[in-house]
Amino acid sequence: MRKKIVVIGGGTGSFITLSGLKKYPFDLSAIVTMMDDGGSTGKLRDQLGVLPPGDLRQCLIALSDASDTWRKLFNYRFESGDLEGHSFGNILLSALEKVTSSYDETVEEAHKIMAVQGKVIPVTHDKSRIHVEYQAGRVVEGEKFIDEKSIDGDRIKNISLVPKATLNPKVAGAIEDADYIIVGPGDLYSSIISISAVEGFKKVFEVSEAKIIYIMNLMTKSSQTPGYSAQDHIDDFARYFGRQPNYVMINSEDIPKDVVEYYKTESNDIVVAGSVKNVKVILKPLLSPIRSNKKSLHDQVFAHSVIRHDPEKVAAAIVEVVG
Amino acid sequence: MRKKIVVIGGGTGSFITLSGLKKYPFDLSAIVTMMDDGGSTGKLRDQLGVLPPGDLRQCLIALSDASDTWRKLFNYRFESGDLEGHSFGNILLSALEKVTSSYDETVEEAHKIMAVQGKVIPVTHDKSRIHVEYQAGRVVEGEKFIDEKSIDGDRIKNISLVPKATLNPKVAGAIEDADYIIVGPGDLYSSIISISAVEGFKKVFEVSEAKIIYIMNLMTKSSQTPGYSAQDHIDDFARYFGRQPNYVMINSEDIPKDVVEYYKTESNDIVVAGSVKNVKVILKPLLSPIRSNKKSLHDQVFAHSVIRHDPEKVAAAIVEVVG
Repeated sequence: MRKKIVVIGGGTGSFITLSGLKKYPFDLSAIVTMMDDGGSTGKLRDQLGVLPPGDLRQCLIALSDASDTWRKLFNYRFESGDLEGHSFGNILLSALEKVTSSYDETVEEAHKIMAVQGKVIPVTHDKSRIHVEYQAGRVVEGEKFIDEKSIDGDRIKNISLVPKATLNPKVAGAIEDADYIIVGPGDLYSSIISISAVEGFKKVFEVSEAKIIYIMNLMTKSSQTPGYSAQDHIDDFARYFGRQPNYVMINSEDIPKDVVEYYKTESNDIVVAGSVKNVKVILKPLLSPIRSNKKSLHDQVFAHSVIRHDPEKVAAAIVEVVG
Repeated sequence: MRKKIVVIGGGTGSFITLSGLKKYPFDLSAIVTMMDDGGSTGKLRDQLGVLPPGDLRQCLIALSDASDTWRKLFNYRFESGDLEGHSFGNILLSALEKVTSSYDETVEEAHKIMAVQGKVIPVTHDKSRIHVEYQAGRVVEGEKFIDEKSIDGDRIKNISLVPKATLNPKVAGAIEDADYIIVGPGDLYSSIISISAVEGFKKVFEVSEAKIIYIMNLMTKSSQTPGYSAQDHIDDFARYFGRQPNYVMINSEDIPKDVVEYYKTESNDIVVAGSVKNVKVILKPLLSPIRSNKKSLHDQVFAHSVIRHDPEKVAAAIVEVVG
């Protein structure tokens, strides 16, 4: 029997984990956050009244066995005119939602169109937004706002969803059946904890017998995890998910100084591994090679693309645990 | 051996002919005009620098064996926001053109995506526009302008393409192999004669041994065929294509008075069959049932949708000739 692995998170991080794991004989599912409201996704959401397609799109592509052309097409982003900034895959998912009679059917058809090996499961079919209270009292609604730079070092006190979101029934089955649950990488609040905020998720997650591997972010994010150590990430995770992870996977590779300097201009820094309590640490080189400088390093940093986890290194490290 | 039938025209008319013929065991190809520059197609063309997708899209859908959902999706038109007015299929073809390395590859991939039974062949891969001179001296460039209402009854003196367009090499093969060529229905200049205006088309067409069936339009169009009789249509056809059709198929069914009245407000009228010289006339009931009144009759007329040829009636009449 192939091992059942569930990956939890948003589009960018889950894409990395899923594309790496796809080359191994696992039974893969992805549970995807549905709270994005920025960029192309946010516009489509607001203008067409559809569910946010962006995170779903990236997971579908990661698990797609479709032709290279189809995968390129699905990820293509228009560069001018009415469609400027919109990704074709987002447009496809939005139109599909319009011509199908339920979001279940939308997702099922998308699996067929993209020849997806495995399952991509939106955590909810409800149109909710993230509602965040910071410790200093500031209240923010909308994921796009907690994606922005913040300079005051204020931490998040509480997160909830408005309106409340109901769990997609398919999530429970996937969590119950899982042998391993991989969390991340991804922005702690917007991509990961937003999933736990869906009504009923925590209850299912707490009682799961799956082992949990938490892939620690490389860098802090000023608006969500200012100055966070690895332990801080784990504490927040445990608070919202009701369980500690069994493993935490931390990058051991050096991050080039100039890259760190750039991140600091955004008030972000390397996540300090420090000492971690009660969780088994997997310390491995996990860095993706820095991209060739077609864009300037500055542009790359601000496009959040300059340092990333490497799909193959992450997958190999997971396989060492999962066997 | 299945008979080889080539359908020539634009999106709306060829869609009717192709969807009807698709149910018979013919070997079908469609040669499609590529001169549209109005509406969603025109915007995509201008904003993205792509070839006009609209006519191609409709022919692909007509011959598609894809699921109903896919066909609905391909024809879905966005109703609000950045994408308002754009058809999903047009967006797909535009993105596909961006991620493929030639328009041949674009069209080939589109055939795969839509599971097309038969071949849809753009008459050219060049980005040309229609250039029209009217008898009274007015000169107009762009298909969208010869789609507009005209009230002076002025006839077209000459049509050419700017810049000159080269024939897609696949067109010659299809014409040479054809047993029958079906022309129309469709706007005489923008959908039909625009094809003959591509360099090299007339030469191939003239020498073809295929029999030609010309499906006469139901109504005149003030900006292209003001007051035209069936014979006027045939004369212009023969002038540009270098051959008379062998058959002309004319509707025998009565068009309701109120519909005719509405068309008259646009300076359009029923095409008078009259006497036709040297061409065999097939007189048949060809009308599609008038649509239910979700939109007002007025809206339907101005959306050019109130009277149409019926795909099944047209196909049955063609089959009587072709055998």
